[in-house]
Amino acid sequence: MGSVAEQEHPKKAFGWAARDSSEQRGSKDVTFKVLYCGICHTDLHKIRNEWKNSKYPIVPGHEIVGEVTEVGSKVEKFKVGDKVGVGCMVGSCRSCDNCANNLENYCPKMLLTYGSTYLDGTITYGGYSDFMVADEHFVIRIPDNLPLDASAPLLCAGITVYSPLRYYGLDKPGMHVGVVGLGGLGHVAVKFAKAMGVKVTVISTSPNKKNEAIERLGADAFLVSRNQDEMQAAMGTMDGIIDTVSAPHPVLPLIGLIKSNGKIVLVGAPEKPVELPVFPLLGGRKMVGGSMIGGIKETQEMIDFAAKHKISRRR
Amino acid sequence: MGSVAEQEHPKKAFGWAARDSSEQRGSKDVTFKVLYCGICHTDLHKIRNEWKNSKYPIVPGHEIVGEVTEVGSKVEKFKVGDKVGVGCMVGSCRSCDNCANNLENYCPKMLLTYGSTYLDGTITYGGYSDFMVADEHFVIRIPDNLPLDASAPLLCAGITVYSPLRYYGLDKPGMHVGVVGLGGLGHVAVKFAKAMGVKVTVISTSPNKKNEAIERLGADAFLVSRNQDEMQAAMGTMDGIIDTVSAPHPVLPLIGLIKSNGKIVLVGAPEKPVELPVFPLLGGRKMVGGSMIGGIKETQEMIDFAAKHKISRRR
Repeated sequence: MGSVAEQEHPKKAFGWAARDSSEQRGSKDVTFKVLYCGICHTDLHKIRNEWKNSKYPIVPGHEIVGEVTEVGSKVEKFKVGDKVGVGCMVGSCRSCDNCANNLENYCPKMLLTYGSTYLDGTITYGGYSDFMVADEHFVIRIPDNLPLDASAPLLCAGITVYSPLRYYGLDKPGMHVGVVGLGGLGHVAVKFAKAMGVKVTVISTSPNKKNEAIERLGADAFLVSRNQDEMQAAMGTMDGIIDTVSAPHPVLPLIGLIKSNGKIVLVGAPEKPVELPVFPLLGGRKMVGGSMIGGIKETQEMIDFAAKHKISRRR
Repeated sequence: MGSVAEQEHPKKAFGWAARDSSEQRGSKDVTFKVLYCGICHTDLHKIRNEWKNSKYPIVPGHEIVGEVTEVGSKVEKFKVGDKVGVGCMVGSCRSCDNCANNLENYCPKMLLTYGSTYLDGTITYGGYSDFMVADEHFVIRIPDNLPLDASAPLLCAGITVYSPLRYYGLDKPGMHVGVVGLGGLGHVAVKFAKAMGVKVTVISTSPNKKNEAIERLGADAFLVSRNQDEMQAAMGTMDGIIDTVSAPHPVLPLIGLIKSNGKIVLVGAPEKPVELPVFPLLGGRKMVGGSMIGGIKETQEMIDFAAKHKISRRR
């Protein structure tokens, strides 16, 4: 067919062609200038191909904020000049049960912000870039009073801890929640849990993080996980635990820390299986669950909550 | 003091003495003639001291039903001639949070029907006996239309599966629940789940249990856990699983069977820790929890539900 076209139109010209009969791509797209982009440990896993599924070239970055420069003809939620962000995903099937329940993050066809094959067959590229384009459904509005630089990481780290606090019901004022690990995730977990009115105890292997946990982040207590006396004294006192640690570590002591009906939520992703003792789970009707980022609706809710309570990912 | 008393009262006589100023023991006690008592695997564990905590002599039996022959002066719920039962426990502190929430089964001071040290310092004895005495709080009323012989095992096996179906929300009509293992627990799990209006799939290593599962118990489907094709076809179809197996077995295939937000509830008690892969938990916000029998209020509810739906532990 190419040769026929060339015979019909022997004079070369530059033009824009519709490749097929589908609606022109981009009518729901929001284009924004990237002003800040967080660095997540996942970026390092991906760059190093540690999960054995990287597709090169990779443009990492999934905690992206910036200012809208262009909107497609059918974009309704945003206009040029708006402050916006994109987190871990830029697409999903929009029709499965999870999508219908605003849980695009658990859609089997969820498209990651980078390294996924987009609807048009191209590979998605992330926020280590000067511009970003995404369907408006996956774009988050950043409230005016949130500093852009410090709010970017909330789009991954923030929603990763906010969502399980809500879903597992660990968000009730007066509850006592443990946060294991004081890295990128633990840090915001403390801030969100405190803003929800929850008593927070940070559990860490490093005694030297105590000051940061209590003085800077406002945690109520600090437990050194290797200190048997401290751990023993805290047995059965927590309603739940957000465990942010992805390095291998024992779960049994954490099960001891929670009350009957307590919940341990894993948000870090150790490569090897965790050893789960069953008797202590049965004896207190305890559970161990997982959680992975959050849906778009909840991500917007998290960002609005952060703005209201002046939470950002700045230390 | 003994010698003084003997000097004061040199003539021997038989009498009943109040030993101290506390209320006379037994005023809340219900005495019943044991008519039937189930045999539970736990009885075997205990007799063989497999959990290393048996106190001999042991009188096993914690699925006990019979007819009231005597009631204490302050007993309000029962009268002579009533059909009653006692399950796994005969005491608890009655003041902790769990007791206040009708979860005596999770009270740290819960007293087992046999082998526990009772309030008066004696060892409790179970239902392999002609008579049973228990505080009325721990006595269950057996409705008239339940056959006594076949209802006895409900007091342990029945509540063990009924309680997690309710607590973990796997009791909604139209849901799809898997039952792993078709022994004493799995058997009643199928019956209760079906009576709740739930679609039930039995998962077993033994293909020869298919007929029993479907024809006799009314399960909707049967999966041979070693059949990769069957397991693959059922991936992501279940809202939850009641896992009754206490022998070591992999949890990963079960995690694959449940949908996003699905729950696996362990009610069997393997002695060794289970290997829990974390990625699949995170990717579908799935959870693995435990459950151990149930509180007294819920045990009565379970027995009443069984009577209403004509469920008994008869094959």
